[in-house]
Amino acid sequence: MIIDCHGHFTTAPGGLQAFRDRQLARLIDPALAAPTLRIGDDQLRETLEANQIAQQRARGIDMVIFSPMAGGMSHHSGPESTSIEWTRICNDLIHRCVTLYPDRFAGVCQLPQSPGVSPANSVAELERCVTELGFVGCNINPDPTDGFWRDPPLTDRSWYPFYEKMVELDVPAMVHVSCSCNANFHGVGAHYLNGDTTAFMQFLTSDLFSDFPQLRFVIPHGGGAVPFHWGRYRGLAQDMGRPPLGEHLLQNVFFDTCVYHQAGIDLLTRVIPADNILFASEMIGAVRGIDPETGRTYDDTKPMVENSALSAADKEKIFSGNALRVYPRLAPHIAAAQSGAMP
Amino acid sequence: MIIDCHGHFTTAPGGLQAFRDRQLARLIDPALAAPTLRIGDDQLRETLEANQIAQQRARGIDMVIFSPMAGGMSHHSGPESTSIEWTRICNDLIHRCVTLYPDRFAGVCQLPQSPGVSPANSVAELERCVTELGFVGCNINPDPTDGFWRDPPLTDRSWYPFYEKMVELDVPAMVHVSCSCNANFHGVGAHYLNGDTTAFMQFLTSDLFSDFPQLRFVIPHGGGAVPFHWGRYRGLAQDMGRPPLGEHLLQNVFFDTCVYHQAGIDLLTRVIPADNILFASEMIGAVRGIDPETGRTYDDTKPMVENSALSAADKEKIFSGNALRVYPRLAPHIAAAQSGAMP
Repeated sequence: MIIDCHGHFTTAPGGLQAFRDRQLARLIDPALAAPTLRIGDDQLRETLEANQIAQQRARGIDMVIFSPMAGGMSHHSGPESTSIEWTRICNDLIHRCVTLYPDRFAGVCQLPQSPGVSPANSVAELERCVTELGFVGCNINPDPTDGFWRDPPLTDRSWYPFYEKMVELDVPAMVHVSCSCNANFHGVGAHYLNGDTTAFMQFLTSDLFSDFPQLRFVIPHGGGAVPFHWGRYRGLAQDMGRPPLGEHLLQNVFFDTCVYHQAGIDLLTRVIPADNILFASEMIGAVRGIDPETGRTYDDTKPMVENSALSAADKEKIFSGNALRVYPRLAPHIAAAQSGAMP
Repeated sequence: MIIDCHGHFTTAPGGLQAFRDRQLARLIDPALAAPTLRIGDDQLRETLEANQIAQQRARGIDMVIFSPMAGGMSHHSGPESTSIEWTRICNDLIHRCVTLYPDRFAGVCQLPQSPGVSPANSVAELERCVTELGFVGCNINPDPTDGFWRDPPLTDRSWYPFYEKMVELDVPAMVHVSCSCNANFHGVGAHYLNGDTTAFMQFLTSDLFSDFPQLRFVIPHGGGAVPFHWGRYRGLAQDMGRPPLGEHLLQNVFFDTCVYHQAGIDLLTRVIPADNILFASEMIGAVRGIDPETGRTYDDTKPMVENSALSAADKEKIFSGNALRVYPRLAPHIAAAQSGAMP
């Protein structure tokens, strides 16, 4: 079984954006009528079949861990109430996709984060998504200000109530920024990778995993700059008197394979233990063209992992074993889908 | 000849920090006496001989392109006048080091950047350092707010007068952030690499090098996340209708080898053309310990480049040829030093 741990609903029907546009317009003109989401199941089937599922079939990917579009979370927009409403709409839409295709998708939720608002306020939506909607994890935005980084780090104690709930529910989080409102940071070309690198170093300098030994994070996009600078991080940890990275972080921190060339995948699989790598493509996402060097889409990372120097056993961990371990709610979801017991 | 293009004066005698402390204290209490820098030539010889030059001898590095401590630039501190005074002090100190050891060091200046101040205001100090002090390049801080990224990108037209002067003087810039005042960003573990990644993407999305075909930038720390994600950047450029990266950026953008493990150097030299890589170690800098995997200091990158799969000709480019090409004022400096004509 091939599990892709990182897919966003980037091809949602236009009704979703129409809802969002009206929602944000009402912040300026409250006299406008409240929006209603108008997306039919046929529309969902159409876009999923034509896009994500078509690609899954073409590439041989069985299951995608599926979440709302990262750039669309846009946590900086409006007050907390706006974020709560939008988050519920987006998560409910993911739930509908999963309900239509339980054998193709498992749900991961966005959170109703908002600048200056305690992460504890996201506990309720996490609980709703996991216990009521059957989701298997969540996405945490390390920068709800969307490019200005004015909220506390992920290791701040204000996160602790949320982490307690994650541990209680036994779900991991992917650390994933949203859009960038800062002209310095291109979204998918800079802000995404900076967010990954930043989060890893926050973890490195903290005692978070002493406080939460069961807490698990997936850092996407291959970990940003981290594997390329693995020696730097080993050295920094050593200079700071921290334990070796394997002991200090690698029980809790995992990297995905959204690295869009063979040399990058080869580096990732050379320096990061196979137990800490989860297959992913972020399809359909940041890069959509065909690489003239391979004749395949840039984000078709499966052949790259297959072509790496890893053993068959290690590849199996990356393609499915690690995802089932990091997302313990995934196996019951798959079993239920296969038995027809879903939703 | 082995040229290290990236060294900072991280071991300056305590008199430098004493000056800075008093300078900043006077912002709060202007009644304090103005500071004077009190560092003797013997003190400079002592620290350079015991540190940088000792390491150069031990590692077989002939020449270091030497600039003020990056973290110490601290452009956010005080108003522009503070930055101007501090920058002149730091650059003059580099000039004294170069004058003492012209066969060991060539000077690169910091700039009197200040948040909200036009980069055009840095033209005079660049001209002074190049024409009066014999410096061969400069360091540009892409975030003078030191972790909050509130100033315009490097591709903003406010930079153009400065770039005109760089082209006129035929000097390159290294893009190097300073310290981080943002609790989200660890300095050398996140802010540095994020700055590198951010700058590259700013260049990718701009027409800067159409406007300035002769402008040259060195992105340090191996280019941050860029080589690891080279496929992502090729794909993003392609999706945006930009020319291939080789044509679009690689006449103007270069990467150093401050990547502190063999696998990282192997990736860098595999994906980035040898013409675009400059040897560097950032010695004595961010990581100071000994790597138990090699028995050498983490920042001893020379054996890693030697152990890479490159041809002898390509290694020669990386160790000296490219530096002499990117920093055209370096060869005359070396010739003068060798003939005893310096300072």
